[in-house]
Amino acid sequence: MSFLSDTTAPAHPALLDAMARANAGAEASYGNDAISARVKARLREIFSTDLELVFTVSGTASNALALSVLCPGDSAVLCHDEAHIHRDERGAPEFFTGGAKLIPLKGDHARLDAETLAAALEEWPDDFVHTTPPAVLSLSNLTESGTAYDVERVSTLAGMARARGLAVHMDGARFANALAGLKCDPADLTWRAGVDVLSLGATKGGALAAEAVILFPSVMDRLGALKVRQKRAGHMLPKMRYVAAQFEAWLENGRWLELAAHANAMAARLAKGLAGVEGVTLAHPVDGNEVFANLPQTVQDRLEAAGIGVYQWTDGSFRLVTNWQTRAEDVDHLVNAARG
Amino acid sequence: MSFLSDTTAPAHPALLDAMARANAGAEASYGNDAISARVKARLREIFSTDLELVFTVSGTASNALALSVLCPGDSAVLCHDEAHIHRDERGAPEFFTGGAKLIPLKGDHARLDAETLAAALEEWPDDFVHTTPPAVLSLSNLTESGTAYDVERVSTLAGMARARGLAVHMDGARFANALAGLKCDPADLTWRAGVDVLSLGATKGGALAAEAVILFPSVMDRLGALKVRQKRAGHMLPKMRYVAAQFEAWLENGRWLELAAHANAMAARLAKGLAGVEGVTLAHPVDGNEVFANLPQTVQDRLEAAGIGVYQWTDGSFRLVTNWQTRAEDVDHLVNAARG
Amino acid sequence: MSFLSDTTAPAHPALLDAMARANAGAEASYGNDAISARVKARLREIFSTDLELVFTVSGTASNALALSVLCPGDSAVLCHDEAHIHRDERGAPEFFTGGAKLIPLKGDHARLDAETLAAALEEWPDDFVHTTPPAVLSLSNLTESGTAYDVERVSTLAGMARARGLAVHMDGARFANALAGLKCDPADLTWRAGVDVLSLGATKGGALAAEAVILFPSVMDRLGALKVRQKRAGHMLPKMRYVAAQFEAWLENGRWLELAAHANAMAARLAKGLAGVEGVTLAHPVDGNEVFANLPQTVQDRLEAAGIGVYQWTDGSFRLVTNWQTRAEDVDHLVNAARG
Amino acid sequence: MSFLSDTTAPAHPALLDAMARANAGAEASYGNDAISARVKARLREIFSTDLELVFTVSGTASNALALSVLCPGDSAVLCHDEAHIHRDERGAPEFFTGGAKLIPLKGDHARLDAETLAAALEEWPDDFVHTTPPAVLSLSNLTESGTAYDVERVSTLAGMARARGLAVHMDGARFANALAGLKCDPADLTWRAGVDVLSLGATKGGALAAEAVILFPSVMDRLGALKVRQKRAGHMLPKMRYVAAQFEAWLENGRWLELAAHANAMAARLAKGLAGVEGVTLAHPVDGNEVFANLPQTVQDRLEAAGIGVYQWTDGSFRLVTNWQTRAEDVDHLVNAARG
Repeated sequence: MSFLSDTTAPAHPALLDAMARANAGAEASYGNDAISARVKARLREIFSTDLELVFTVSGTASNALALSVLCPGDSAVLCHDEAHIHRDERGAPEFFTGGAKLIPLKGDHARLDAETLAAALEEWPDDFVHTTPPAVLSLSNLTESGTAYDVERVSTLAGMARARGLAVHMDGARFANALAGLKCDPADLTWRAGVDVLSLGATKGGALAAEAVILFPSVMDRLGALKVRQKRAGHMLPKMRYVAAQFEAWLENGRWLELAAHANAMAARLAKGLAGVEGVTLAHPVDGNEVFANLPQTVQDRLEAAGIGVYQWTDGSFRLVTNWQTRAEDVDHLVNAARG
Repeated sequence: MSFLSDTTAPAHPALLDAMARANAGAEASYGNDAISARVKARLREIFSTDLELVFTVSGTASNALALSVLCPGDSAVLCHDEAHIHRDERGAPEFFTGGAKLIPLKGDHARLDAETLAAALEEWPDDFVHTTPPAVLSLSNLTESGTAYDVERVSTLAGMARARGLAVHMDGARFANALAGLKCDPADLTWRAGVDVLSLGATKGGALAAEAVILFPSVMDRLGALKVRQKRAGHMLPKMRYVAAQFEAWLENGRWLELAAHANAMAARLAKGLAGVEGVTLAHPVDGNEVFANLPQTVQDRLEAAGIGVYQWTDGSFRLVTNWQTRAEDVDHLVNAARG
Repeated sequence: MSFLSDTTAPAHPALLDAMARANAGAEASYGNDAISARVKARLREIFSTDLELVFTVSGTASNALALSVLCPGDSAVLCHDEAHIHRDERGAPEFFTGGAKLIPLKGDHARLDAETLAAALEEWPDDFVHTTPPAVLSLSNLTESGTAYDVERVSTLAGMARARGLAVHMDGARFANALAGLKCDPADLTWRAGVDVLSLGATKGGALAAEAVILFPSVMDRLGALKVRQKRAGHMLPKMRYVAAQFEAWLENGRWLELAAHANAMAARLAKGLAGVEGVTLAHPVDGNEVFANLPQTVQDRLEAAGIGVYQWTDGSFRLVTNWQTRAEDVDHLVNAARG
Repeated sequence: MSFLSDTTAPAHPALLDAMARANAGAEASYGNDAISARVKARLREIFSTDLELVFTVSGTASNALALSVLCPGDSAVLCHDEAHIHRDERGAPEFFTGGAKLIPLKGDHARLDAETLAAALEEWPDDFVHTTPPAVLSLSNLTESGTAYDVERVSTLAGMARARGLAVHMDGARFANALAGLKCDPADLTWRAGVDVLSLGATKGGALAAEAVILFPSVMDRLGALKVRQKRAGHMLPKMRYVAAQFEAWLENGRWLELAAHANAMAARLAKGLAGVEGVTLAHPVDGNEVFANLPQTVQDRLEAAGIGVYQWTDGSFRLVTNWQTRAEDVDHLVNAARG
């Protein structure tokens, strides 16, 4: 069992079964298939609103496509300094937008706060031809430190951004984990709070390769532009039915939230266990399926001796990620190993 | 049974089975998994050479990534006027290269000939700062008209291009069909003939979504650049093992060529049948799994009455595509319907 | 005296005088100076309409900026195969637009005709996500062969383009020569005929470095976008007053048309003279200040012996360009040398 | 007399005279003229080294072109958070590089220090496909706060950058002012200290529109690429002789340093005068021709009453810029007005 990343985990068998069921007969290509249509209908129910979407096969693609229909190349995206879009996507947002600037902002636990956002909005004017104006606020939920923005935080920040004319993007690679942790309504955490576009990731939550860029009503008119960019970037798969099938099974009967809740519970168990180990402290609140722990060298050595790989984060702490498949005994094994 | 495109077909069950087998335990992400390594080893055997590769999930992505490591944005790609990269990828090559120019050239049956290439090479100089110089020759095999370039044709054209310092790309979305039709050695049709990079497509040949950009030894040093671009374009999938698994099953025991040979045989049967229908003529030689037939209105009406969809090509003929799953009775059903 | 290009000529002294007069006191930067405002007012009179504009210092910059506010990167520009934007600007349009495609069309004497345009408009659909749709028709007036589009030709082609939703750009690097030759109203040859944006060049007509991108009322709302791109491309000069001063003096009392008419008269004299030389034929009609002549080897040798450089064009003929400074005796000297 | 910016000043008459002298006869286009060659020879003497260069007409163009031959689109530029390339060029570096990332770093008085640079170099690794690696360090000299990097500072920072494989760019829009203030050898402040490319600006120092991108021997092999980008960006002027003529007159007999020294002296006089006004403090050291002063409201009111415009900087202080034409009585007039 690996705690290195939720991308090293296999897929939930129900998703593979759904793909196998989809594997019969001719189907329209490029997302015009019947399963894709059903997934859209289902997401409309889940988010209690009309919406449009395209599928992709990576979170990087989803984020970059989302930003590319919100931010012209001569404008900027405000984001946290540790945001995945800024640190871990090799400039995909810059590539897809045609050279937009990402303005990195500071904030505890990888979360932006209102004061910092206000200062940034003032610092970067929007009426001066020489300066790159901000066009988008991007929030990651969960953040890169495993913390969540709750409905109130999202509303406050998105409200400030919108008041200045910015669009709001949410990187939801672990949106299910945020939602399961916050126990709130998906609509409240997104469009009702001012989010225009959601990158909804299923891959880390149990899919093989399934992500969606969801346009809420405020920006549904950009569907045409989004599809053009999806095609132009090679992300309009000929046999899209297999991505749609993954989503259908993932969303079926609340499976997506169940799997996320399980991963979160395993992370909570892990955090509690590690916090009880002498010398170990938690670097960030644990709001989802990620634990960031400061590990004394002795603990690091014990884990290494037990053959348990851990990943040191840029802040010096160690990131441990649980997933839909993590078992309580895997967690306990790690905690016991840490305890020595 | 649809003859509209080989992208409307389902995947071969063996590939889904392979994905299911791959769905166990933790695996390294982003292409560093064991299955990816095995596929590379297998392709080295098949092509009788060292090589490097990355996987993608669409032919558009493969072509655009391939061109992006061969052609700077200030240079040009010579290709046939009907090439997929020019006509059907919404400017993906231009996007990935940063604005390279595609120079469309004429040629019968969507094939370039030596005379036209020679004229183009002369027309676009490479030592003049004001003019966009050609940096790449791109050949599609099968072409967009379903014809094949044989080893000699590839050698001639690639040799001319290389003599002028151009790199040579082959769009092999239907490479298996070309190979099965020509009954030649994969090495002879590619790197031994002067091809630097091959976009090898499995999707149309029976995969769900599996393509590869193969760098032959002459350009293997561009692997680093290719991976950067793959990541930057959102095509470095976290759980790449599932794409690799498709390739492994597709290449296993010559399955890829068997499936292609079957599709080709069905196309030959279809061509022969249609050619016997009064008023029907073939627009292009049938070298693979595509038939382009000129259909009198009466025949079009009969097919429509039988509920058989056909796709009119830009040259006025109708394109009929077979695939790994097409049955002889499907073909005969269509021919009978056409005959009235 | 050189006939190689009108870019090798010096500037008209009146323009340098105007720059010297402008060289006093503090002036607002970046185009917000008083002279720029006066030039805009003067151009409104000349074109009998409201308009907006920005200055640049090269025709390549003007064309690329103009196209960049008319053509998104996922769309295409229809132009003649010999257009300067396609052949002589090292992909500047592709660079400024973010990867738009230039679709080269054939036509006698570097002029497009209605039949070819109609076929191209049909060939490249605008409602299909896979295909790059045309967004702009670009006409060069004078063309690269020195021919002019008269008002009727422009109206016909622009009308067809607009009916399909395309914008119309005119590359007017030698617009003054076209206008002086056609003896028509500048408004009739541009916005009244359906031209949305004019690249108006003064450099070849007697300036040091002065070009303008003129937005006619149909696209005046793109001024903001144009200024952003002008800045972003490094073409918003700090001390713009000196470019404006050139334009002011060039347009003063009809000087621009006088200088063009003189250059045209010299070209006519040259064409007449050369046509009388045995073995010499004209390759294209002479509508402005360029003569394209087919020269037998003997004539080429005579010119070379006389130390007169000539420039062989891609069609095999030789291009001879006159300018505001060309004297009748220079022309006669060349003709006499050709005659031997 | 305006203290708003050195871009509002006119040009030195000697430069206009030189342009007038250049205005005779035919000259090779696009930078192949005799004056350009002479300027290159002169700069080789001044910098005591072989070098290559291209001219441009704006500092934004020079910086963006320089960066574009040093930094691939998938890489990053380290610069100060207040750098002109980051704050005042509307994303030109991102545009010209094809989407490179600018990583803004903090530092007093708009100067980077070694500690901050070391941290940034560690924070952004160069061997990880997911992360954008730094490829260039860009230093502004003078900085945006009017301070200078002396030889030792440049050497230290450039040495650190080069040790990590980065190239070093210097934005020298006010390089003459830095040099005149530091009284050091141009070679010592640039290539001997590790600078690869210098954007040398003459416009703020007395030219109409004249800037140069200078490639020192370490990167002279990029001249071809630089020219291609210069052309592609519309910055290869047809009649380049007039830009070259400005440079020739500017560099003649040390005029560039004399004019800079004069502007610096005026700034020193201004700083001393203002510092004597009650309530006024200087925000930054005055190393060149810019004074940043914290002005109490009463002083602001007095200046406004006297009709003297001042420009509030982002740090709250007011920027006052002198130029080659500023007179001692202009300075004294302002100081007296401030004193009330």
